[in-house]
Parts: sequence; structure tokens; C-alpha cells
Amino acid sequence: MPSYTAPVKDMQFVLHDVLKVSDADIPGYADLDRSFTEAVLDEAAKVAQDILTPLNIVGDVEGCVLENGVVRTPKGFKQAFDTLREGGWMSLDAAPEYGGQGLPYLMHTAVNETFVSANMAFNMYQGLTHGAYSAIKVHGTDEQKTKWLPKMVSCEWTGTMNLTEPHCGTDLGMMRTKAEPQADGSYKITGQKIFISAGDHDMASNIVHLVLAKAPGGGEGTKGISLFIVPKFLVNEDGSLGDRNAVSVGKVEEKMGIHGNATCVMNYDGATGWLLGELHKGMKAMFTMMNEARLGVALQGYAVAEAAYQNALTYAKDRLQGRDVTGVKNPGGPADPLIVHPDIRRNLMEQKSFLEGARAWAYWGATLIDRAHTGDMAADGLIGLMTPVLKGFLTDKGFEMAVQAQQVYGGHGYIEEWGMSQFARDARIAMIYEGANGVQALDLVGRKLATDGGKHVMAFFDLVKAECKAHEGDDRMKGFVEPLKAASKALQQAGMYFMQNGMKNPNAALAGSYDFMHMMGHVCLGLMWTKMATAAYTALDAGAEDRDFYEAKIATGRFYMARQLPACAMHLARIETGAEPVMALAAEAF
Amino acid sequence: MPSYTAPVKDMQFVLHDVLKVSDADIPGYADLDRSFTEAVLDEAAKVAQDILTPLNIVGDVEGCVLENGVVRTPKGFKQAFDTLREGGWMSLDAAPEYGGQGLPYLMHTAVNETFVSANMAFNMYQGLTHGAYSAIKVHGTDEQKTKWLPKMVSCEWTGTMNLTEPHCGTDLGMMRTKAEPQADGSYKITGQKIFISAGDHDMASNIVHLVLAKAPGGGEGTKGISLFIVPKFLVNEDGSLGDRNAVSVGKVEEKMGIHGNATCVMNYDGATGWLLGELHKGMKAMFTMMNEARLGVALQGYAVAEAAYQNALTYAKDRLQGRDVTGVKNPGGPADPLIVHPDIRRNLMEQKSFLEGARAWAYWGATLIDRAHTGDMAADGLIGLMTPVLKGFLTDKGFEMAVQAQQVYGGHGYIEEWGMSQFARDARIAMIYEGANGVQALDLVGRKLATDGGKHVMAFFDLVKAECKAHEGDDRMKGFVEPLKAASKALQQAGMYFMQNGMKNPNAALAGSYDFMHMMGHVCLGLMWTKMATAAYTALDAGAEDRDFYEAKIATGRFYMARQLPACAMHLARIETGAEPVMALAAEAF
Repeated sequence: MPSYTAPVKDMQFVLHDVLKVSDADIPGYADLDRSFTEAVLDEAAKVAQDILTPLNIVGDVEGCVLENGVVRTPKGFKQAFDTLREGGWMSLDAAPEYGGQGLPYLMHTAVNETFVSANMAFNMYQGLTHGAYSAIKVHGTDEQKTKWLPKMVSCEWTGTMNLTEPHCGTDLGMMRTKAEPQADGSYKITGQKIFISAGDHDMASNIVHLVLAKAPGGGEGTKGISLFIVPKFLVNEDGSLGDRNAVSVGKVEEKMGIHGNATCVMNYDGATGWLLGELHKGMKAMFTMMNEARLGVALQGYAVAEAAYQNALTYAKDRLQGRDVTGVKNPGGPADPLIVHPDIRRNLMEQKSFLEGARAWAYWGATLIDRAHTGDMAADGLIGLMTPVLKGFLTDKGFEMAVQAQQVYGGHGYIEEWGMSQFARDARIAMIYEGANGVQALDLVGRKLATDGGKHVMAFFDLVKAECKAHEGDDRMKGFVEPLKAASKALQQAGMYFMQNGMKNPNAALAGSYDFMHMMGHVCLGLMWTKMATAAYTALDAGAEDRDFYEAKIATGRFYMARQLPACAMHLARIETGAEPVMALAAEAF
Repeated sequence: MPSYTAPVKDMQFVLHDVLKVSDADIPGYADLDRSFTEAVLDEAAKVAQDILTPLNIVGDVEGCVLENGVVRTPKGFKQAFDTLREGGWMSLDAAPEYGGQGLPYLMHTAVNETFVSANMAFNMYQGLTHGAYSAIKVHGTDEQKTKWLPKMVSCEWTGTMNLTEPHCGTDLGMMRTKAEPQADGSYKITGQKIFISAGDHDMASNIVHLVLAKAPGGGEGTKGISLFIVPKFLVNEDGSLGDRNAVSVGKVEEKMGIHGNATCVMNYDGATGWLLGELHKGMKAMFTMMNEARLGVALQGYAVAEAAYQNALTYAKDRLQGRDVTGVKNPGGPADPLIVHPDIRRNLMEQKSFLEGARAWAYWGATLIDRAHTGDMAADGLIGLMTPVLKGFLTDKGFEMAVQAQQVYGGHGYIEEWGMSQFARDARIAMIYEGANGVQALDLVGRKLATDGGKHVMAFFDLVKAECKAHEGDDRMKGFVEPLKAASKALQQAGMYFMQNGMKNPNAALAGSYDFMHMMGHVCLGLMWTKMATAAYTALDAGAEDRDFYEAKIATGRFYMARQLPACAMHLARIETGAEPVMALAAEAF
């Protein structure tokens, strides 16, 4: 069975050496000193390692079963959910007035990383609830907040998001689910929603579905869509549970992975719901949650890969196979460990350098969300720009790295009992849901680059430039600054190409959108590695005791800069071929 | 349920327009005229489409079950196996003296492609038999050939290959399975073998296991290994089946994919076996089969991706979602089909341009094997050089493309009933077995580049150079020749880097081996596309009727050259960073 150890030291390095969170001028951050975050992360680590990790493969093997209209979760899930609920782990960053602990979103992110690494499918029950909580908190009336939030914060009730229908996913304008207004101010919701994660289960006494539907008078397309609160059980005035609402599970899907999470077809047959937010502005309500939800999926991308990497590393150190061509390393044994072989080392370094860069980037993104919550529009713009890249790049690469981790195991990686297949199968969904990665690329190039007149992408380039400038003349940083400069220049050149050609023909930009997303992902990781190397040198210069740790950071970063940033030139070359090669073949000629 | 249509027209294009097989001076090829190959491929297409395709998802869902010591295959497999056996499909290229049809290996390859696309797991029962047949044919005594081959050619008996043990896969020198010589000239085989594909099943009356084991006196490491024929049932003098041999199935593995094929733990408990080939030269006997077996796996890589692509294409044409930003294409419908979107088009073009290039390359490889069978050492050297690249590149990319095909489906791609997950899960194994792709890269850079003083890689570069030279001054071929020249130059430069640095430090070459393998794969596909474009222009110039078909070839090829060959410069940049970034971190510092 695979194992997992929360990388608390690496997390602490990002929080304190790199992001220097307790000195950041963000509300709530002053309390985040080293000892506090370490205590929280150490406790989270125990939960992740002792409770969630052993259930990961159980969830995969057993899956969720629909019995008599109710979903039964895998053995042990309910007890674990109770334990996490009792430990307060579901409410770290929720508002204290609803029972939350009021910690920054950053701490939620770091803790969440360990939970997702340990058991992605399990953590989704809480993750969806967090999303629904945020929607009600931002868009709900005071009465709604009082009614729903406290029990959602505690996860006594969980939440879901209902967007997709059989004939429409990305293009929600075609939605058919209807909301008919009733005399008492409620609505009757009728329609079918699919792919509803955590749609039903046996771990909470009620489930609060947030459902997009069309109410009369809203017009065509997405403009006519509103958001509704539709609970599984109606809730009485005194907060006790009342009648079962007319919502039922049509089916639990058989999926490639995340078997421990119930992906449901939900049937709404005149179910009672209440409008959340403004009528006909449901899409807007959904969009305000997207940065957080997408950052959550980005985190899944690398967190699952982290767990896969840890196991691949152990296997590479333990498995004896072949001899080091430069000289035997394990003369007492029948062979040397896999890790002596350069191509295994390449594979592991690709994983390691990606994962540590991804973590730094995700945490930085979380600080921007915390800043944005205080009304910092620059932070809001920057995280808005980076969100599709975080989601698209980290989930693409996260899956790729989970597949590479599986590869280290050879044939054993393909056998389910070793658990490496599950990591790859679970990681796969993150590229698809919360907006397929092609849609992220479209959002980035078709929308975010031009947001506020391109102000945010300019600010991003200024950040990179400032980082490079800060190390000018510093020889030991050359291996970071030069590749970062080149990559950033290539990215700007790609942006220029889009500007110059996209006006005449939008396809000239859109055909390169996926490459641009990956290119920008590499630049962001290059930026993070430059910052991490700086932090590591600073610690070494200050006489840090654990020299090996900081030197490993620098070596890992140098690998990323030398071996991964060259991808940017390739992406640029592809982008500059424009729409023609991509669109030359007519649809009917395929 | 996914569908599949054998791409006979594309196959014919490769065979006749590109490879001009009936004019090739290879024994048996003169008969391969257009109408003959079309007739064979049309019949194979019917088998693939009508019999094997419907069983693909059945095999995935049901899997193989061990019951009372015998493996039960999924419902319908046995009947289908009988049908194929009766149709003579198992013996296309087998020698007529053993009941085969004596067609070239090329025809086996083309027919095999359709069968693998339709049902990879099913086809492996025959594929393994083919491998065992080849081993006995090359290394067996006349008596052994007479005894075993006729029933293996007809697939009345099937075959397996037993190499891996729990503690050793790539490094077979650590093998523990023992062979004790008996007075009657036979051996008693004792040990455990794992990952034995088609290890047991209910579709044949006997199973002929080829087993690597250590006989006394062979010394340490791989030198002591011999190959043995160990049947499930002993065979009497008259050819009838005798006693059950002491070989049993310990377990059927639960795998990520190819559930329809029984991957078995095989226990040999003093089983009776007979030496095949020379004593203590078993590795050599295995190696002579490797080019074919690895080409077979390379074919799996792209053949599964072909089936995935066909379904993704249909979905992209049918699924209405969003609008073409350059103008509505389906004004009568609620949305335009997915295929109007540039990033979907990019995705599909990547699949299409890979698949058609891969097919041409695999068929070319098969012609080299046919030439090599006639004693053509240049062909033998060239296919030996290309084999690790065919296997490594086509299976890596085949998996990647199957994943991209799945991505076109959005959320539906993750749901098992749509079948796209199965393609990705099935394709995954091809990167692992028959030598994990890292081992292919090692074989290429550590062995094949230097084989016969580098003669074969020089011959390869000469071929590319000649192709480029043939089109000098031809403006319409510029989009092919220039990228091919640049990619080939980069590949040569990488080779030079290895030569100059690998002598001092082998890791300087090995750290770049994976990149080199991919680079060479791109150059090979670039070469094939240049040849295909030439053939298409030739047909167009000759006034071919089906202009759309040939023009589509050229457009697809231009996409590959413009958008995929730039990867070579990236791989070169990575390679030229040498061993240092890869090996800088000590194993214990991970």
C-alpha cells in the first residue's frame, strides 16, 4: 500500500523563507509565525497520514454504491469524516461568526494540500462544501447565511455545485433545468444535472445543493440563469430537518478514478429551492467563486502527484535493478538501487522540481486571494490572470508527473495493489473538471490577457523583470535569472504575436492558447524557483544549520531552470505558426 | 459504446503510394498489389469491426477470473477466438510448412493494427503466441518445430513468454527460477514468474510457456540463463495431450487496463521443460525476438490511440457546445460543434498527424524486418537502431494522444461507459512492458548508436539527407524539408554531444537518453511525413480523383512539421545541459 508523509519542512520553507508570511501585510498573517504554522501543519499531517492515507485505496477499490436511493460511501469514510469534523479541520478559514476558525485562505490551502495528497476523493466532500459555503457567504441574505452556514462550516451538512447537464457543460447557455416561482417566494426546480461530485452520501445529515436553473423572464443564453439553494431535506424554522425534498440520485457514475467520491446524476422533480443572489445573475454568482475553486483543483493536480512522487522515490531507493555505469554503488547487494540510473534520476528530478515549484506557486496564489479578500484590486487582477494557468498547467503536469511516478515502478506500476495506477487515474480528472484545460487556455488568452486593458499581464511581467533585476550581477543566480529572462521574453513575444494577429483573426491567438498557458506556467515556476533559490542562498549565507536542505533546493531549482524552461522556446515556435496549420484542414476533411 | 472503423484507405496509401510495396524487391512483396492488400484489409476490417470491437468494453468490464485453477476469459472471447482461428487470421505470416499463409511480416503488421485498435487485450493472446512461435521457429530443433509449431500457428495452442520474477524485471541476471537436468534430457523447472500475459485462459487446449531459468554450470548473471519450453499439458508421442504439467496460476493481477488479458503469476513446481536453443544462451534467444516484439508493442501504442481518435473526432463533430468566434457555423442549432474551436482542432490535429505518421513508420519498420529476414544486414541494422525509438516514442505518444482524445469528451471522457478511459488505461501498459521506455532510451543511446561503429545511425542520417536533397528547390516541399533538416541537424548535434562527453562520463549521455529517443522519434515522423507529402503531391500531379484525400495528407503533414518538430530544439537544449543538473542532487538528498 502506498504511503504518504506530509512535507511539512518544504511547506514551512515556502511559507516563511520564501513568502515570509508573518511579515506580509495581510490581515491575519501576523499570527502565522513559524511555530504556529508548524503546529497546525504537524497536526494536519497526522490526520492525513494516519486517517486519510489508509482509506485512499479502500475508497478506490470499494467505490460508492447507490442503495435504496442513498449513496453508501466506502468503509471507514464516515468515521474519518466525523473525526475531521470533530477536529475542526473542515472550517479552518471559515468566518468565526459561523463557527469557523477565521484563518487565512493560505492556511486552508496548505492543510488542504496534505489532505488531498492523502486522499483526494475523500477530501472532495469537504471541498465542495467549502465552495458552496463561499457562494452563500458572498451572495446569500443574512437569513440564508444564518440558516445554512453554521452547519456547512461544521460539515454537519455538506454542499454541492450543480452546473452541468447531459447536453451542456462548458456552454451553460443551453441549460434546460427550470425554476418556477411559487407564491411563497420559493421556486420549484425541475431538471437533470450530471457529474455532481459528492452529490449524495451517508456522511452528513443534510446536503445543500446549489443549482443553476432558468427562471422565467431572463432571456436566452447564460443571461437567464439563476442560482438556487436546494437542500436534500427541507429545514424547519427551528433548524431541525423536515421533509425530504424532491431531489434524488438517478445514478452513481463508474469513473476512471476518484471512486471514493460519489459522482451523481441528480434529478430535480419540482424540488423546492430558494434564490441565491440576484435573479438571472446566477452565472456571476458562480464566477465569483471560480478563482478559489480552480485554485483548489490546481492544488489537486500537484498534491496527488506529490503522493505519487513520494512512493516512486521510495521504490527507486529500495528496488535493486542493474548497476550504476559509473561504478557499483551497492557492492554488497545483487544490484544497485534504481535511483543510480540517470534516466530514473531525470524522471524523479522532473517530479521533484515540478512539485516544489507548484507548491510555492499555489501558496503564493493563496496569498493573493487573501489580499484580494481585503479589496486589493491588483492582487485580485493578478490571481485572476494566473488562475487559468494554475488550473491548466498544474493539473496537466500533475497528471504527467503521476504517470511518471507510475513508470518508475515498471510493471508493478500497472498493478492496482501497488496504488500507483490510482494516483494517475485520480489525477486525470483535475484536467477535466472545473473547466477543461482547453477552456482554461481560452479564458487566459481570450479574456484574461486583455482584462483591464492588459494591466494585469503587464504587472506580471513587471514582477518577473523586478525579480531578474534584483539579481543582476549575482553570478551564483545566473543559472536562474538567465533562463527566466529568456522564458519571460518568449512569453511576451507570444503575447505580442497574439496582439498583432488576433485582431484580424481571433483563431491566430486561440490556436496558440494551450501553448501559451503552458509557457506561462513554466515562467511562473521559473519565477518561484528564482525566489526559492534566493531564499535558500539567504539561509545558507546566514549560516543555517540544515545546509543539505537548502543546497538541495538550489540543485532542484537549477534542474528546473536548465531542463524545463527550454520548453518555452518550443511553445513560442508553435504559437508563431499561427492559425494556419491548425485550421487548414476543413472540419469535413478530417 | 465506442466504435472503430479500420482506416483501410490510409493503410493502402502507406502501402502503395508511400512504400510502393509491390515494387519493392523483397521476397513475397510482388504479390502485394493494391487489390490484394485491399481485399485482405477489408476482410480484416470486418473481423475487427464486427467481432473484436464490441468485445473491447466487455473485456474491460468483466476482466479475467481465476476459477478452480483455470482462468475464465470474458464472455464472447472464446467464440471470437474460434472465429479468428477458423478464418486463418492467426497465421498470416507464419511459415506454410507449419500451416501458416506465408505472407510478409508487413501484412501481419497491417492486419494486426486493426485488431489491436479494435481490442488490444484480446489480440494479445495471439500476439504472445506469435512471439513464442518465432522463438521456437528460430531456435528449436526440427523435432521441436514439428511438435509445437503447427498447433501454435493455428492457435489451437497458444504461447507465453516468462521472463520477469518478483525481484527482477529489467535485470534478469538476478533470476532465481531453476532448471534441473533430468536423465531423459528434460529439465525440472522450479520458480515463480510474474506479469505473464495470456498466462492462462480457456480459449486453447494447451498453452506453451517459454520460460527463462538458470540451469547448473552457467555462471553468474544473465550468462547462466537458458530458455525452456514448458507446456501446460504434456504432449504424447502421437500429439495428443497427456498429463497436466506442474505449472499453475498463482493469481490473476488486477490491473489499470487490458483487463481482457489474463496477467498471471505462474508457479513452476518442478514442471517438465525442454531446452530451447543453446544451453546458457537463453538471453540471446530472447533478444533475437525483441525487434519484432517491440515493434508489436509500438504498434499497440498508436493503434489504441487510433481507436481513441476516431471516437474523439466523432464526438467533436457531434457535440454542440459554444460558438465559433469567427462566425456561427451551425445557425440552425443551439451551438456549433466542438470541432470549430481552435484548441479542439489543435488537439485533433496532434492526434491525426501523429497517428498517420506512426502508421507509415511502423509499416516501413515492418518492411525492414522483412528485408532483414532475407539476410539484408543494412536493413537489420537500421531496424535494430529504430526499434527502441519505435517502441518508446510511439507508446509514449500513443498514450498521450489517447489521453488527449479522452480530453475532447470533457467530463464524459472520465466516465467508463463512454469507453475513452479504457483507451487511455489500455494504452498505458505499452510504455511499460517489453522493456520500460527508459530502458528503450538506454538501449538506444547506450548500445544502438554505437553498434557496428555507428554505421546504422550514419545510414539513418544519410537517408534523411537524401530525402531532403531530393526536394531541393521544390518550393511546395519547403514546409517539410526545412523543418526536417533542422530537426535532423539537432539530432546529429545531440549525438555529437554524447560522443564528446559520454566517453568521459557516460551519465552525460544517459541523462539525455530519453530526450534523444523523443527527438529521434520526431525526426522519423518528420521523414515519414516528407515521404507522405511527396506521395500525395505525386498523386495530385497525376490527376488523382480523390483530391481531398491527398490534400488532407499534405495539410496534416504540414501541421506535424510546423507544430511538432520544434520539440527537437527543446530536447537538444535539455541534452546539452548534460549530466550535471540531473545528477547534482545526491541520492540521499532526495
